[in-house]
Amino acid sequence: MIKIGIVGGTGYTGVELLRLLAQHPHAELMAITSRKEAGMPVADLFPSLRGRVNIAFSDPVEAPLQKCDVVFFATPHGVAMEQARSLLEAGVRVIDLAADFRLQDPAEFARWYKMEHSCTDLLAQAVYGLPEVNRSAIRAARLIGLPGCYPSAVQLGYLPLLEHAGLIDAGSLIADCKSGVSGAGRKAEVGTLLSEAGDNFKAYGVTGHRHWPEMSQGLKAIARAGGQPMLAEKLRMAFVPHLTPMIRGIHATLYARILPGALDTDFQALYEKRYADEPFVDVLPAGQMPETRSVRASNFMRIAVHRPPVGGSGPSDLLCILVVEDNLVKGASGQGVQVMNLMFNLPETTGLTLVPVLP
Amino acid sequence: MIKIGIVGGTGYTGVELLRLLAQHPHAELMAITSRKEAGMPVADLFPSLRGRVNIAFSDPVEAPLQKCDVVFFATPHGVAMEQARSLLEAGVRVIDLAADFRLQDPAEFARWYKMEHSCTDLLAQAVYGLPEVNRSAIRAARLIGLPGCYPSAVQLGYLPLLEHAGLIDAGSLIADCKSGVSGAGRKAEVGTLLSEAGDNFKAYGVTGHRHWPEMSQGLKAIARAGGQPMLAEKLRMAFVPHLTPMIRGIHATLYARILPGALDTDFQALYEKRYADEPFVDVLPAGQMPETRSVRASNFMRIAVHRPPVGGSGPSDLLCILVVEDNLVKGASGQGVQVMNLMFNLPETTGLTLVPVLP
Amino acid sequence: MIKIGIVGGTGYTGVELLRLLAQHPHAELMAITSRKEAGMPVADLFPSLRGRVNIAFSDPVEAPLQKCDVVFFATPHGVAMEQARSLLEAGVRVIDLAADFRLQDPAEFARWYKMEHSCTDLLAQAVYGLPEVNRSAIRAARLIGLPGCYPSAVQLGYLPLLEHAGLIDAGSLIADCKSGVSGAGRKAEVGTLLSEAGDNFKAYGVTGHRHWPEMSQGLKAIARAGGQPMLAEKLRMAFVPHLTPMIRGIHATLYARILPGALDTDFQALYEKRYADEPFVDVLPAGQMPETRSVRASNFMRIAVHRPPVGGSGPSDLLCILVVEDNLVKGASGQGVQVMNLMFNLPETTGLTLVPVLP
Amino acid sequence: MIKIGIVGGTGYTGVELLRLLAQHPHAELMAITSRKEAGMPVADLFPSLRGRVNIAFSDPVEAPLQKCDVVFFATPHGVAMEQARSLLEAGVRVIDLAADFRLQDPAEFARWYKMEHSCTDLLAQAVYGLPEVNRSAIRAARLIGLPGCYPSAVQLGYLPLLEHAGLIDAGSLIADCKSGVSGAGRKAEVGTLLSEAGDNFKAYGVTGHRHWPEMSQGLKAIARAGGQPMLAEKLRMAFVPHLTPMIRGIHATLYARILPGALDTDFQALYEKRYADEPFVDVLPAGQMPETRSVRASNFMRIAVHRPPVGGSGPSDLLCILVVEDNLVKGASGQGVQVMNLMFNLPETTGLTLVPVLP
Repeated sequence: MIKIGIVGGTGYTGVELLRLLAQHPHAELMAITSRKEAGMPVADLFPSLRGRVNIAFSDPVEAPLQKCDVVFFATPHGVAMEQARSLLEAGVRVIDLAADFRLQDPAEFARWYKMEHSCTDLLAQAVYGLPEVNRSAIRAARLIGLPGCYPSAVQLGYLPLLEHAGLIDAGSLIADCKSGVSGAGRKAEVGTLLSEAGDNFKAYGVTGHRHWPEMSQGLKAIARAGGQPMLAEKLRMAFVPHLTPMIRGIHATLYARILPGALDTDFQALYEKRYADEPFVDVLPAGQMPETRSVRASNFMRIAVHRPPVGGSGPSDLLCILVVEDNLVKGASGQGVQVMNLMFNLPETTGLTLVPVLP
Repeated sequence: MIKIGIVGGTGYTGVELLRLLAQHPHAELMAITSRKEAGMPVADLFPSLRGRVNIAFSDPVEAPLQKCDVVFFATPHGVAMEQARSLLEAGVRVIDLAADFRLQDPAEFARWYKMEHSCTDLLAQAVYGLPEVNRSAIRAARLIGLPGCYPSAVQLGYLPLLEHAGLIDAGSLIADCKSGVSGAGRKAEVGTLLSEAGDNFKAYGVTGHRHWPEMSQGLKAIARAGGQPMLAEKLRMAFVPHLTPMIRGIHATLYARILPGALDTDFQALYEKRYADEPFVDVLPAGQMPETRSVRASNFMRIAVHRPPVGGSGPSDLLCILVVEDNLVKGASGQGVQVMNLMFNLPETTGLTLVPVLP
Repeated sequence: MIKIGIVGGTGYTGVELLRLLAQHPHAELMAITSRKEAGMPVADLFPSLRGRVNIAFSDPVEAPLQKCDVVFFATPHGVAMEQARSLLEAGVRVIDLAADFRLQDPAEFARWYKMEHSCTDLLAQAVYGLPEVNRSAIRAARLIGLPGCYPSAVQLGYLPLLEHAGLIDAGSLIADCKSGVSGAGRKAEVGTLLSEAGDNFKAYGVTGHRHWPEMSQGLKAIARAGGQPMLAEKLRMAFVPHLTPMIRGIHATLYARILPGALDTDFQALYEKRYADEPFVDVLPAGQMPETRSVRASNFMRIAVHRPPVGGSGPSDLLCILVVEDNLVKGASGQGVQVMNLMFNLPETTGLTLVPVLP
Repeated sequence: MIKIGIVGGTGYTGVELLRLLAQHPHAELMAITSRKEAGMPVADLFPSLRGRVNIAFSDPVEAPLQKCDVVFFATPHGVAMEQARSLLEAGVRVIDLAADFRLQDPAEFARWYKMEHSCTDLLAQAVYGLPEVNRSAIRAARLIGLPGCYPSAVQLGYLPLLEHAGLIDAGSLIADCKSGVSGAGRKAEVGTLLSEAGDNFKAYGVTGHRHWPEMSQGLKAIARAGGQPMLAEKLRMAFVPHLTPMIRGIHATLYARILPGALDTDFQALYEKRYADEPFVDVLPAGQMPETRSVRASNFMRIAVHRPPVGGSGPSDLLCILVVEDNLVKGASGQGVQVMNLMFNLPETTGLTLVPVLP
């Protein structure tokens, strides 16, 4: 059994991690901390876990995190970077669901998160926890910066296009993304009240969103790893997120201009081939369009490849990739468990075979 | 492995049954029929099942149902009673999720369902599939009439009060129930469109609902089985269902007048004791109130016992029992799997340990 | 033009009051205060009001409230009782949408609202602002305590039954009520986030809710005003509120036992006759059931009268009254405007003829 | 008073038209037809209209449509083109909310709507009912083809960019649009059930949608009318609609590449100036983002102008225009009333000053 600690488990990524770990055959939850809720049984805060999670929140200071095999940080950014070093020194592996170890450039981190990074030396050993891109590095990692929810969908959506030269204009990317409200977390805020966000739709963060530099870094890394440094160089992408009146789910609608010489490319085949062996990435048959509920409460991501008509003569020069994921699973806690499985040499799908809930 | 057939799997109880069986270690799906969708892969209709359910819908005439160990009917009422006999004669057990084998009185069936019952002789061997009431009969049964969604919640909510004399006025029962829209099924109807049922709340069926005679029959049976024939005699209950703008979930708010001599009863203890050994019935600690999402996508039912203030001096004489269940799981398909486990001598919770999905 | 001030207009009753007053032909908004948002244009907080409300929030200290004809308090309880006296002394009429002037007994107020009442002498002149009950007193009033959202529906739902002796057992009342989430206000709280309250249903406040003493006081007053002091004496009522995943709307399902001698009563006629001249109370034809959206964004209340079957022989002895209102209109701000119209000798429906929004 | 007839008023554009006309000071509803519901009082189908619309649906054959001043068609496509001629010959003006008179090219109509156009000669006199583009033609028109919901938002969103040369690459347009479910109409269909469309998000019609040729025709007409035939020639646009789990509202996220020579353009000023005199088009202050509820149940459209960061050096070359409208008001029935006002020489805003409903 893998001995597991969770720091800060009162949010949505925390309760989702608890749900998944409670159904994982090799997970043993040792401690879950919350300064505010210390002493309260977890199942009193989340009655869905009654009978399945029988420990209480413990004070961060007293929790036996050093005795765990792995500690997940399901906290706001800024917490993991304060505590990671001592855990790593004690031989504990660390998986951060927040942003502390995502951006390799501390200046970028400071610019977007409005705080200095406090352990820039650890960044060098931090691995970006996107298995479909970094599988072997993850297996060997001791410190993981887990991708954000939007970046998971956007990177895997564009990935096959960036591993080959000549297919698309890398300077033309537009990621029009839509997220359920749980992406904003379990925080007392007016903007995500049911009476505000319900029966309503809006864009936000159009002038700049923290997931943009992460996507940008990730897409460039994908291009370079795929042997396409020129694509990385040219890459320009707009990211426009929208708040959708639903609880879970991200839908990314990704656009790219096909280069004149690539108009005959079979993009459907390109995607199918690239993801043929990926257990959690499902390329839909040509013509289908994915819906967010088709992955609800599961670790699957589904992708469809389209070329919408634009008018004029000749084939459409616009590629439109549709990607869905559950922002709390493949976009957060499920990916965390997938990464943990890799780190502990378990089959990658262990504990993650839950069938999506529909309706 | 239990060889399983499903008749009529294109509705919500059908897809939920598929979800549960796909995660059941001893279930092998042999056939699923649909006249209308014959030939279509199940996963094309329900993309949530891609990679998990790999067969297609088959024509009812051609499906190898006779070779199954058990056949579920996830059809409208009137279908199972036409096909049950030949299956039973072939040694196949039958679990009907619809209403054909719920009511023991064919006249009541005809009155409420507007059709004659076509195999009244089979009614005698049909067992009402509510494990918490009929566990031993279910183990031996070959034909099951599975309870409706509302009746499951209402019967288990009132049960402990009807097994003892002198506690409540059995003539005073009021079941004010609220259901998510999936209870109305996956039928093309105006009334359950998102634009009609969304952001809206209403009562329906106040003048008479098909689940009323089933509840009435069941509650009387509970009283009699508990040695309280007088309570069965006196029993009067109103049932007022409401349509709630959510997908899954039933909340039953059950009222009963406490008899003057029973005002000092510890009803909390009564419920806790009665359900102490039930794996799927969870009595909440005193003072808590259950919410439907605490059982979402799981087979749990949660119950809370309250005595709301009514004014005047002395203790309140009104008991208010709050019950939540997922109408598609404990109220339908999950209960079907629970019953199947009993019929095939498996541990009752096999394949049903899924943790509720929250948020 | 009536010169109007609003204290605390950043909540939902505030914005709804602004919406209604912007469409009222005799209303002139002089000032709206908010300590926190002072200086911010109202339309920046509520873009729905762009072009229609052109003033900014002002600091409570500086606002020219004393020069208004009437001041609405759309604040949490405890504010109006601090400021009402000086306004009244300046000749300004006061309409409090909060609870400060609802309960006549200061001890009850202290018990339920956990604070002492600071101007108990003003309670004597405060009029309870329910026009269908207190129309003439309202016309003459200078200080109004406007009913709560639930109490409006419950009182008008039971009213015709309490004006006559011998109809119902006044000790048997059960008000099972369901409210949209906007009833909880525009406060940053976890419990009313879309991710918490969406796709979910639960009871709350079963052990005691602040609207209970208000309903109790009101129903007794109705009985006494109707010449039925004995009914007032006997009155016992349970109130069980539930949180519903919708934005606006209250549905009250009201139960009462019919006395043996009254089983032949034509309750439908009783209700139709009682409300025949009420412009905002609509009794539905026999057999219909109201839905909350049928009054959405309007000042209407719709009521249906039912006798659900309970089993046994003879007619049902249970009366079930269904009431719907928009909690922000007839349950709050619309009722405030209705009361204002009465106080200023305008036709009662002035500015309140907006047609409900469906779908 | 304008005597008004409505053909086919049982859908959402029908009930919305009824709501608006009931509040219009110069409208007199003479007849509303429905073959299926003939004889049923309108308020029985739509209880929101009780007391406000007092006529019944009448049989299309018997309705006195010829005596009306104007007849609205709130029908599926294919109906208006059968009946328009005889009405026009009788001197009745016709406003079609469906698609029969939108596309000028009958071949395009046949291609997208799968039926031949039956009165192509009338197309020549049909005016496209978008007041911000065609105001003077509308005043003189006898036959109006009212724009679709998506095309209204997309055309007014791009309009200021197409009236000037050199600003954007007209071949790069991408309209990523999101609609509430009421856009699919009040038809009994599985796909728009609450249990299907609720808590879910998906793209649809990516391979081709009927509103695409309408937008394309309209945008080219705008460019030509603005003196930019070259822009019309170059115009290429992708349209990707998405279904959003809300009732009302459209959000269009419109992208266009800024030409190198236009990077210094003040697009905010361009939009503000263009729409300064338009009563129903509201350009938000720079930096704001519109939400659909800010126009709920009103005839307003709100537009925001953004340039999201794309990385690299220099200013962003991507323009992102955000447009919101209520699909049933400015996207359908409200626009119909606006057009009617123009046709009958009423102030354009008559009956359309309703304040948006929020929350």
